Amino acid sequence: MKTLSVLTTALFFALTITARAQAPEAKLKEMGITLAAPSPSLANYVKAVRTGSLVYLSGHVSNRADGTGIKGKVGKDLSVEQGYEAAKLCALGLLSSLKAEVGDLGKVKRVVKVLGMVNSAPEFADHPKVVNGCSDLLVAVFGDRGKHARSAVGVAALPSDYAVEVEMIVEVE
Amino acid sequence: MKTLSVLTTALFFALTITARAQAPEAKLKEMGITLAAPSPSLANYVKAVRTGSLVYLSGHVSNRADGTGIKGKVGKDLSVEQGYEAAKLCALGLLSSLKAEVGDLGKVKRVVKVLGMVNSAPEFADHPKVVNGCSDLLVAVFGDRGKHARSAVGVAALPSDYAVEVEMIVEVE
Amino acid sequence: MKTLSVLTTALFFALTITARAQAPEAKLKEMGITLAAPSPSLANYVKAVRTGSLVYLSGHVSNRADGTGIKGKVGKDLSVEQGYEAAKLCALGLLSSLKAEVGDLGKVKRVVKVLGMVNSAPEFADHPKVVNGCSDLLVAVFGDRGKHARSAVGVAALPSDYAVEVEMIVEVE
Repeated sequence: MKTLSVLTTALFFALTITARAQAPEAKLKEMGITLAAPSPSLANYVKAVRTGSLVYLSGHVSNRADGTGIKGKVGKDLSVEQGYEAAKLCALGLLSSLKAEVGDLGKVKRVVKVLGMVNSAPEFADHPKVVNGCSDLLVAVFGDRGKHARSAVGVAALPSDYAVEVEMIVEVE
Repeated sequence: MKTLSVLTTALFFALTITARAQAPEAKLKEMGITLAAPSPSLANYVKAVRTGSLVYLSGHVSNRADGTGIKGKVGKDLSVEQGYEAAKLCALGLLSSLKAEVGDLGKVKRVVKVLGMVNSAPEFADHPKVVNGCSDLLVAVFGDRGKHARSAVGVAALPSDYAVEVEMIVEVE
Repeated sequence: MKTLSVLTTALFFALTITARAQAPEAKLKEMGITLAAPSPSLANYVKAVRTGSLVYLSGHVSNRADGTGIKGKVGKDLSVEQGYEAAKLCALGLLSSLKAEVGDLGKVKRVVKVLGMVNSAPEFADHPKVVNGCSDLLVAVFGDRGKHARSAVGVAALPSDYAVEVEMIVEVE
């Protein structure tokens, strides 16, 4: 009886851990999203650095694996909705680099911090609605563990005129 | 005799710890400052995330609990002095969110890092004097433990045209 | 025989540690670079804060110890090459403050994160080539341990119109 109880408990924990570990990637699949392999860094920096339980991810711009992307200044060349899509692309790039670093997105304990930088016309003022494109995806994939501290600001210009750049800090197992 | 000595030592440490724990909030009171309850986050992010001994605070803009705030571009719509006041409002918002996260500001071991982003006319160049509004308040409240690493820069635009946005990392007990 | 082996092993490790500890500063010397003493902070912040094994460095601008520096907006007043030199000056300032904080650059285990902010004309789009001036120096000095996560963006304005400001996080022994 006692042995059965121990076995049941062990099984319960094994299933819980499995479910937890697979959840984010299963969720991505359910959303019809396939993460591309991260593009190589073209200079003396890398996409991600782990120190202790934290992974620091480089700023990822609103490009796609196929070389296309969303470019231009939000509030001038692009609408808020287009900016939202651009921030979502940043999130997908970040997740791709994070997966390459830790192996399985199920190891994410918490998305700690997001800095969303919007390529912004000087009079634009809806940066939070743009950066929500990144935040919403993170919470859709990780649930409460995806809720992060965040800054959303408008910068003067971004590399190759991409619409959004986002950097992120993640706590992992 | 030995027992008395042990008791005295214990009492000394108890008083020291109490004094240290209460100091920042007593200091705020002495300065006539009452921290407002933090406003709720309106999207998929939170005001603060703790990981290990660090608390990462979201970018806080120069608004007040009553809905008013300081808006506009420093160097164009606002003077350096108005920018200084705006940065002080950011600091108060940060402390409010920090208190909500850790319970008592006496738990702060060190303010580690501040990133002060000033809504800036392109020719403005006095960002440090603006962000001092935040740094001065932190040191007034926490003393040497309030002295932080800092960046002060001018961004193209901020959410709802607020004058300043500041994010912060704090080490806590 | 066994004693000799132990002694040899101890000697080997001692030499390895010494070599590793001296490498970055020897490399700087080989490159003909002498780090200036860091200038004092002029306000309620400091150049560096250590928490656990991480050192957070303040934003360092493109100035020199002799008071000169590289100023202006890249893409308008300055070329990419001048911006590259400016970012290199930021790196030298960061290393100077880091050395003052930890005593010996040989204690650096990893440069974790760099945020490079370029004083940027709104239409400028080559920020990575500018911030490479910092990244290349870090990798020249620290080798693979110098490879960091990075964001490179264009801000509207910087303190005293300096061309580049860089902040950095470093893991140390």
